Amino acid sequence: MRQPPKILARHLVARSRLFRVEEVELEFANGARRRYERIPGGRDSVLIVPLLDPDTLLLIREYGAGSERYELGFPKGVVEPDEEPLAAANRELQEEIGYGAGRLRIIARLSLVPGYIQHRSLIVLAQDLYPSRLPGDEPEPIEVVPWCLSELGALLQREDFDEARAIAALFLTQRLLAEERG
Amino acid sequence: MRQPPKILARHLVARSRLFRVEEVELEFANGARRRYERIPGGRDSVLIVPLLDPDTLLLIREYGAGSERYELGFPKGVVEPDEEPLAAANRELQEEIGYGAGRLRIIARLSLVPGYIQHRSLIVLAQDLYPSRLPGDEPEPIEVVPWCLSELGALLQREDFDEARAIAALFLTQRLLAEERG
Repeated sequence: MRQPPKILARHLVARSRLFRVEEVELEFANGARRRYERIPGGRDSVLIVPLLDPDTLLLIREYGAGSERYELGFPKGVVEPDEEPLAAANRELQEEIGYGAGRLRIIARLSLVPGYIQHRSLIVLAQDLYPSRLPGDEPEPIEVVPWCLSELGALLQREDFDEARAIAALFLTQRLLAEERG
Repeated sequence: MRQPPKILARHLVARSRLFRVEEVELEFANGARRRYERIPGGRDSVLIVPLLDPDTLLLIREYGAGSERYELGFPKGVVEPDEEPLAAANRELQEEIGYGAGRLRIIARLSLVPGYIQHRSLIVLAQDLYPSRLPGDEPEPIEVVPWCLSELGALLQREDFDEARAIAALFLTQRLLAEERG
C-alpha cells in the first residue's frame, strides 16, 4: 500500500451557511506537490430503500435544489447530532413517506465525490413497514411512487431517476435480496 | 407533473478557485418559500469503465483529496471546453491507464448530489483497448488494477471501492453486457 501524501498546509478558502471549502497542499511519496480544494466532512447522510413488500419499492418525487428539477429517488436526509443512523433513517421515512420500519439495516456506506468531497452516505434497507407519519420540514407534500423491483429496467430508463447513489442502492438491494432468496 | 418552484432570488454567497455556492430563494406551487444553497453547473465529467476483455475491468488506485485516502475506482476527469465527451474519455484513459479505446459509448448520465450540486457525470464504456499513453497531470503514476467482472462480489466487499458512481457504473455495465450476450 502506498504511503499517503503528507499534508503540508490546510486553509479555509470559502465558507457559506452549509459549505466549507478548504485548500490542502500535499506532498506525495515521490516528492510531487499539489494543491487541491476539498469540501470537508460534515455529518453522514442516510438514503433509505423502503420495501413495502418483497417486490415493491417506495420511491419519492421531490424537487432537487441542485439539479433544479423534480427527481424520482429514495427518501434521504442528514443524521442529526447524537442521533443513531438507523433512528435517522426511520425518522426520515416517517417524515417523507408516512411509514416507519420494523427492520432497518445498513447495507453500504458510500462516498459521493471522493475526489473533492469527504461526505459519506449510509444506504439503509427498510422492511416491515407500518403506517406512521412525523411532521417534516418539506415545503410541499412529497409524492410517493410505488415501483415494482421486477420493473428495474423501466426505472433505469427514466431521465428523472439518475442519481448515482440511488442507482447503486437499487442494485445493491436487488443483489442482497437475491442472495437471501438463495 | 408538478409546476416547478419559482426562483425569487439567486445570490452568490461563496466562491473559491473551484467552487461557487449560490443561495436560491424558491416559492413552491403551494406558496411555501425556502432558501437553499447549491453548487451550480460547471462542466460535465466522465467516468470510464475500461474493459480489457469481456471479463476484465481495468480499475485504478489513486488518492482522493476529498476522502483523504487511496481509492480503488475507475479513470475519470473533466470534459474540457470544446472537447467532445468521448474524446475526453479517450484522453483520460490514455493519461491514466495507458490505453486508448477503439470503441467508446455513453451508457448513462448521472447526477451525484442532486439536492445540492448541479454537476452531472457521463458513464462511458470503453472497449477494444490498445496501448497508448498520453502525459497527464497526475502527481504520481497511477496504479492499474485488473479485476474480473465475475469477481464483482469481492470488489463490492472492499472498503476502498465505495464511490456510488463507480458502483452504479459497474452494475450498469454488467447489465448491458448481459443484455448484449442475450
